[in-house]
Amino acid sequence: MCHTEVKALKEASKHAALACSVCHEKTKEHLANPGPDTRPVTKLDPAVCGSCHKNQYSSFFDVHYPEGGARKEKGTPVGRSPMQDKLLAPYGFTFEHNEPRGHAYMVIDQFAVDRFQGGRYQFKGGWKNYAKNGKTWDVLEDKGESYKLTESAMAGNPTCIQCKTSDLVLKWKYLGEKGGKWDRTSKVTEVVKDVHNPVGCIECHDPHGAKPRVIRDALIAAIDKDPAKNIFAKNGKTDLKVVSFRDGFRKIGVMEQTDSRLMCAQCHVEYNCGPGSQWSNGAKVGFNDIRTNHFPLQNALQLLQHYKDLDFFDFKHAVTGARLIKLQHPEAETYAGSVHDKAGVQCHQCHMPKLKGKDGKMFSTHGVVKPINMVKESCVTCHPGDSVAKKKYEIQTIQNYVKGKMRKAEYWLGQLIDTYKLAQVTGVAPSVLDQARAKHEEAHVLWEYWTAENSDGFHNPDLARESLTKSIAASKAGVKILNDAMLAAKQENKK
Amino acid sequence: MCHTEVKALKEASKHAALACSVCHEKTKEHLANPGPDTRPVTKLDPAVCGSCHKNQYSSFFDVHYPEGGARKEKGTPVGRSPMQDKLLAPYGFTFEHNEPRGHAYMVIDQFAVDRFQGGRYQFKGGWKNYAKNGKTWDVLEDKGESYKLTESAMAGNPTCIQCKTSDLVLKWKYLGEKGGKWDRTSKVTEVVKDVHNPVGCIECHDPHGAKPRVIRDALIAAIDKDPAKNIFAKNGKTDLKVVSFRDGFRKIGVMEQTDSRLMCAQCHVEYNCGPGSQWSNGAKVGFNDIRTNHFPLQNALQLLQHYKDLDFFDFKHAVTGARLIKLQHPEAETYAGSVHDKAGVQCHQCHMPKLKGKDGKMFSTHGVVKPINMVKESCVTCHPGDSVAKKKYEIQTIQNYVKGKMRKAEYWLGQLIDTYKLAQVTGVAPSVLDQARAKHEEAHVLWEYWTAENSDGFHNPDLARESLTKSIAASKAGVKILNDAMLAAKQENKK
Amino acid sequence: MCHTEVKALKEASKHAALACSVCHEKTKEHLANPGPDTRPVTKLDPAVCGSCHKNQYSSFFDVHYPEGGARKEKGTPVGRSPMQDKLLAPYGFTFEHNEPRGHAYMVIDQFAVDRFQGGRYQFKGGWKNYAKNGKTWDVLEDKGESYKLTESAMAGNPTCIQCKTSDLVLKWKYLGEKGGKWDRTSKVTEVVKDVHNPVGCIECHDPHGAKPRVIRDALIAAIDKDPAKNIFAKNGKTDLKVVSFRDGFRKIGVMEQTDSRLMCAQCHVEYNCGPGSQWSNGAKVGFNDIRTNHFPLQNALQLLQHYKDLDFFDFKHAVTGARLIKLQHPEAETYAGSVHDKAGVQCHQCHMPKLKGKDGKMFSTHGVVKPINMVKESCVTCHPGDSVAKKKYEIQTIQNYVKGKMRKAEYWLGQLIDTYKLAQVTGVAPSVLDQARAKHEEAHVLWEYWTAENSDGFHNPDLARESLTKSIAASKAGVKILNDAMLAAKQENKK
Repeated sequence: MCHTEVKALKEASKHAALACSVCHEKTKEHLANPGPDTRPVTKLDPAVCGSCHKNQYSSFFDVHYPEGGARKEKGTPVGRSPMQDKLLAPYGFTFEHNEPRGHAYMVIDQFAVDRFQGGRYQFKGGWKNYAKNGKTWDVLEDKGESYKLTESAMAGNPTCIQCKTSDLVLKWKYLGEKGGKWDRTSKVTEVVKDVHNPVGCIECHDPHGAKPRVIRDALIAAIDKDPAKNIFAKNGKTDLKVVSFRDGFRKIGVMEQTDSRLMCAQCHVEYNCGPGSQWSNGAKVGFNDIRTNHFPLQNALQLLQHYKDLDFFDFKHAVTGARLIKLQHPEAETYAGSVHDKAGVQCHQCHMPKLKGKDGKMFSTHGVVKPINMVKESCVTCHPGDSVAKKKYEIQTIQNYVKGKMRKAEYWLGQLIDTYKLAQVTGVAPSVLDQARAKHEEAHVLWEYWTAENSDGFHNPDLARESLTKSIAASKAGVKILNDAMLAAKQENKK
Repeated sequence: MCHTEVKALKEASKHAALACSVCHEKTKEHLANPGPDTRPVTKLDPAVCGSCHKNQYSSFFDVHYPEGGARKEKGTPVGRSPMQDKLLAPYGFTFEHNEPRGHAYMVIDQFAVDRFQGGRYQFKGGWKNYAKNGKTWDVLEDKGESYKLTESAMAGNPTCIQCKTSDLVLKWKYLGEKGGKWDRTSKVTEVVKDVHNPVGCIECHDPHGAKPRVIRDALIAAIDKDPAKNIFAKNGKTDLKVVSFRDGFRKIGVMEQTDSRLMCAQCHVEYNCGPGSQWSNGAKVGFNDIRTNHFPLQNALQLLQHYKDLDFFDFKHAVTGARLIKLQHPEAETYAGSVHDKAGVQCHQCHMPKLKGKDGKMFSTHGVVKPINMVKESCVTCHPGDSVAKKKYEIQTIQNYVKGKMRKAEYWLGQLIDTYKLAQVTGVAPSVLDQARAKHEEAHVLWEYWTAENSDGFHNPDLARESLTKSIAASKAGVKILNDAMLAAKQENKK
Repeated sequence: MCHTEVKALKEASKHAALACSVCHEKTKEHLANPGPDTRPVTKLDPAVCGSCHKNQYSSFFDVHYPEGGARKEKGTPVGRSPMQDKLLAPYGFTFEHNEPRGHAYMVIDQFAVDRFQGGRYQFKGGWKNYAKNGKTWDVLEDKGESYKLTESAMAGNPTCIQCKTSDLVLKWKYLGEKGGKWDRTSKVTEVVKDVHNPVGCIECHDPHGAKPRVIRDALIAAIDKDPAKNIFAKNGKTDLKVVSFRDGFRKIGVMEQTDSRLMCAQCHVEYNCGPGSQWSNGAKVGFNDIRTNHFPLQNALQLLQHYKDLDFFDFKHAVTGARLIKLQHPEAETYAGSVHDKAGVQCHQCHMPKLKGKDGKMFSTHGVVKPINMVKESCVTCHPGDSVAKKKYEIQTIQNYVKGKMRKAEYWLGQLIDTYKLAQVTGVAPSVLDQARAKHEEAHVLWEYWTAENSDGFHNPDLARESLTKSIAASKAGVKILNDAMLAAKQENKK
C-alpha cells in the first residue's frame, strides 16, 4: 500500500506492525483518493515517537539547571574565546557567541541570539522564561521586521537551520536546491516560521525501518564523494547505504549498525552554510552557489588548503584584511583518528550513557551530556578500575593543557593584528604587509577551529596541540616579518 | 517637654512611651537648665536600638565568611572591571577598587582602602584582623599624616562619608553647607575621627516617630526639586514629607509607608561627592560648590547630558584627555522602571528577606544579602512554583549576558584609547582627535555605570543592554574616525 | 668499620643499630676487599627508608586528585601569570609554565614539560597515564634526539635537576665542579637517564645520623659565606654544621634541631641554574662558570642589585631588550622576616601538618599540602579559637589583595613594552629608549618574583605589596618617559 522505497524499509522492521496513521495524518483521504493533492501529512513532533519511547523523549527535553546559568558569552576572560572581539572582527559572531545549552534549546537559542536577524526573535515574557523549551513559537515571539537591537547582526539563513531542526525534511530538496518549499535562497524570516521543533528522532532513526540513519544532505554528499576514505570509513568502506526518494528530491543514508559518529556528524562538523568570497578573484559567492551548503570533513590541519581548493572564504579581517574561515563545531573531524576512535568508541558511549528510566528499564539517555558531569556512567563503564575523581582529573588535565595553547595562540594572533596596524600606519611596504597577512590566514584557522570545537581538546589532544602550536608559529613568523621591516625602516631613516 | 518638630513625630508613635534618656544622655541637666549649653547628647551607637531590636541588630553585624575572601580587586580578569587600569587612568579608583563586603564594614573598608588618604588607615594588628568589625577606631589605626603607601591615592572627603555613617547627622548642616561642626570643606582626616559606626538604624527609621524616613540631604534635595516626576514618584507624587529642624539646619524626609527604594537610595545611587571641572570652561569645581554634594537620580542613558547641563565632570582620561564621569553605585536609578519595580517589589523584599530569629520570631534580616545566596527566602516567596536551582539559573543567565556586553564595551573602549594614542603620535589632526575624544566621553559613562552598579545587570537587563551596546557603538565610531584618518594620511603620503 | 665522617654521624644515632647492608648493596664484597673498585652501592630508592617509615613514605606518593586537574598553564586569564607571553618573551617558560603538582611528580613534570628538551620526554601511553607517579622511566619515555615538538624549548640542564632529585648526590661534586660522574657541563639528556626518583628522604634526613640535614650545595655555599647574617640566622648564627666528605668532593650541612626553613630552602628559593650574560660587557656566562649554580638568598627588593653585583642576568626581553632575571620559586626569601617567621613558625608546621596514620600513630604528612586545603590541621592548631571558614577567608583576603597588585603590575609592564615599541618605530631617540629600558629592568624583577613564588603573597604580604607597587611605579615612570618624548617630538614637528 505504500511507496516502494518506504515499503522496502518497513519490511521486517520493528515498526512493521504500526499503522501508517500513527505517524501520518490524512492517510484515509489519501488511500481513498491517492495523489499529490491528498498527500498525507507527516507528524514531525518528536512527541509522536515519544508516546512509545518515553525515556528517550523525556530525557531529551528535561532540563537540569547547570551551575552558572546560560547565555555565557565565549568572548570573556573565562570563556572559550576571550579575545574573539579582536580576532574575529568584524564577523557576526562578535555580536554574541555563547557556550551552548542542551539539544532541546538548539532552535530557540539560535533564533534568539543577538547576531540572528537583528535580535528580532525574543523570549515571550522576557528573561523570566529563559529556561522554557518546547515548540519554537510557544517560547519565542517575532518582534517584526523593523525591530533591530543596537549592536546586533543579521546572520541566519535557510542552510544553517538544517542543523537545528528536522522539521523541514520534506520541504527541502537535496542540498537545498530549488524545487522544495524552501531552498538555500529562501528568505530566512519566512523559513523560521516553519520551524517548530529541534532536531528530532527522525534525524537519526528511520521511522519506517527503525534502522539507524542520517538525513543531513551535505553529510551524505560528502561521504558519497569518497565512501572508501572519508573520516568514518573502516577497511575501505562506509556503512551507509544512500536511498533516494521522489526522483532524487531527497536522499537519506541508512546504516546496518548504529554508528553515532555518523549520526552526530550531521551537525557536529565544520560546515559551510553562509555566503562568502573566492580566493581566486574575490568574487562574491551567494546562496545560489552549492558551496554554501558544504561539509569538508577535514580537520584543522587540512581545512585552509581545502577551502583554497574550494575557492571559498568566509570574511576578511577588519584590521589585516586576511581572508578567514569561520568555523562551526567540528567535533566529528576532531574525533576521527583519536585514541578513543581507534578503540572503536562512538559518540553515544560517552555522551549518551545508559541510565535507568522511571520504568526501571535501562536506556541510552537522549539528554546528551557532558561526560565530565556523568563520569561514572560515561567513563568508568569502560575504565572500570578508575575512580570518578581520577577520570575528572585526567579530563581536566588535557583540557587545561589545550586551553593553555589556545590562550597562547590568541595572544600571538592579537600581536600579529596589532603589529600589522602599527606597521600599516608607520608606512611598511604593501609587499611586506601581504606576507604578514598570509601568515594571519594560516594562523587563524589553526586556532579558531578549537574555539568552535566543544571538547577543549579532549576529543583529540594530539591534533589540538599540533594545530594550535602551528598557529602560534605562523603568528610569530608574521610578527617577525613586520617587526623586521619596521626596524629596517628605522635604520634606513637614520642614514 | 520636647521641641515642636520632635513632639509631632513622637505623638502616637510606638516609641511614645520611651523616656528621652533611653536615647539621649544629659537630659536631666538639660531639663534643669534648658539651653544650648546643656544640649543633650544623642546616643548614636546602633546598639542602643539593638537592645530592643535584637534580631535586626545582630543580623547587621554577624559575619558569614564568604567563599573567596574579601578585598577582591575589580580590576582583574575575573573581577567586575578587568580593564579598569586602562579605562579609568589616572583616577584614584585604579589604586584599589574592591568588590564590597557587608554593611558592617562600610566605614572600615572605605577608610582602609589604598586609594583613601594614602593608605594611612590600617587594620590594627594587620591582616589577621581583617574579619573584625565594630567601632571604627577599635578596628583601624591612623598611621599618621606622613605615612604614605607606594601607589596609593589621596581620595576621601567629608561628603563621601555621608553615605557610610549616620554618626555626623547632628554635626552636618543640610547639604554640607558651613554652619555645623563639619562641612564639605572640612579636612577629611579630622572628620574621620568623629566616625565610629557604619550607617545605622536612624538612617532609615525615625527614632522619635518610629516611621520610615530618610536623612541623606542630597537625596531629599533631589526629590524636593521634582516630587511629581522623580524615579520614586507614583501617580505624580512621592510619599516623602520633608521636615525641617533648627531653622533648616537639618531636614529629614518622613514616609507614610515603608519604601525601601527610597531608604536604600540614600547611598545606592550615583552621586557626586568630589571636586571636578566644568565642561564650559574647564574651571575647577571645589568643595565650596554645592555641586560636590549632588544626586542626579538619572540613569546610564541620561547621565552624560545631566552632567553637561550641570556643567561638571570628574576627571580627564590619561591618554585621550576625554572628560569623564566616575560613577558611584547607581542601584536605585537602575532599578527604577524595571520589571520588578513595576510589579511593586522594593529592595528589602529581595535583599532583606524574612528569617526566623533566635527568639523564634520572623524578622527582616538587616544583614543585607545577595539574593542569589538566599534564593529560597528572597525569590521563591514571590515565585512559589520555582525551584532554587531554576531561579539561580535565571539570575546567572541574565548576569552572564550582561557581563558579555560589559566585556565587549571594555574591549572597544580599550581599542579607542590605544588607537587614539597611535593616531596622536603618528600625527593625526587635532580636529580628528577631538571627534574621537567626544566619542570616548559618550562611550565611557554608558559603560562605567555598570561596573559601579552591583547587580551585573539583574536590576534592569534591558537598560543594561541598551546602555552597554550604545557604549560599544560609540567606541567603534571613535575607532573608525581615527583609523580612517590614519589610512587617509597614508594614502596622502603616497601621492 | 666505616669511614670516619660516617662513623661520627652514626654514633649514638637512632640508626646506629642498622647494618650497613640495609642501605648499601655489595657491602660484603667491599668488606672482604676494601677499595674503590668494590665501593658499595647506596640504595637511593625512598622505598628503602619507607620500609620502616611507612606513613611518611606513603603520604609522599599518595595522590589526592585535585579539583581542576593538572597541567594548568600559568599564562591564562585565571592563572598566576596571565600576561607572561608578553612579559617573558622570548624566554623558555613562555612555551609551557604550569602550576605545580605534588612532590611525587617533581621529576616527571620537569622532564615532560614542553620547554624541556623540545618535549622529547613524554608520558608512556600518553595522557591516560598522566596521574601515574613512581620511577621516572616507568612513567616517561624518551622519544629520541630528533623528536621536537612545535613551539617547545630546549631548556633543562644538570644544575636545575639538583632541585628535583636526590639521586645524583654521590655523582655530583660540590657545586657541580668537574670530578664527579656528572657536572654542570654534562649533557642533560645523559644526566636524566640517571634520575629515577624525586627528591627523597636523604635530602633532609641524614641516613647515618638520623639528624636533620641539607645537601643542596649552593645553599650550603650561600650560608657558609655568611653564617651570621643570612636569612636563617638567629642571634648571629645559623644552626648548620658543614661536614666535608672525600676531600671536599661533597659537603653536607647538619643541624642540631629540625629547621624546615633550611630543609625546604634547598629548592624553594630563587636560584640561578642556567647560562646568562654579564651586565658589565654583555659577555656570555656558560656552565663552566660557577655563577650558573648560585643561591642569592635575597628577596624581591634586593635581587636586582644582587645580580648586578654578581654581573649576571638571564635573558633580554624580546621587545625592549631589557636585561631580565627569570625567577625560580623564592619561598624561603619571601618568608624570611614575615609575621609567621618572627613567631618561630617553620614551613612544616603549615605544609606538613600532623595526621593520624593507618597504624594509628600521629605523623607529619610528607604529602606536602597547601594549608588552605587542610586548614584545621595546619592553621587551627596554632589559632585554636578560629573556625576553618574564617581562616580560609583570611588567607584568601590576603591573596586577593596581592593578586590585585600583581595584575596591576602586569598591566603596567605591558604598557611599558607596548609603548616602547611604539616609541621605537616612531623614532624616539635611543637615549630615551635607554631610560625606559632601565625602568623595565627595575620593574620586571619586582613583579616576576611573585609569579614564581607560590603563596600569592601569603608568606609575606607586606613584602609583596612593597615589591609589586614599586614595580608599578617603575613601569609608570618608564611609560611617562616614552610618552613625554613622543608628545614632545609631535610638538617639535608642528613648529
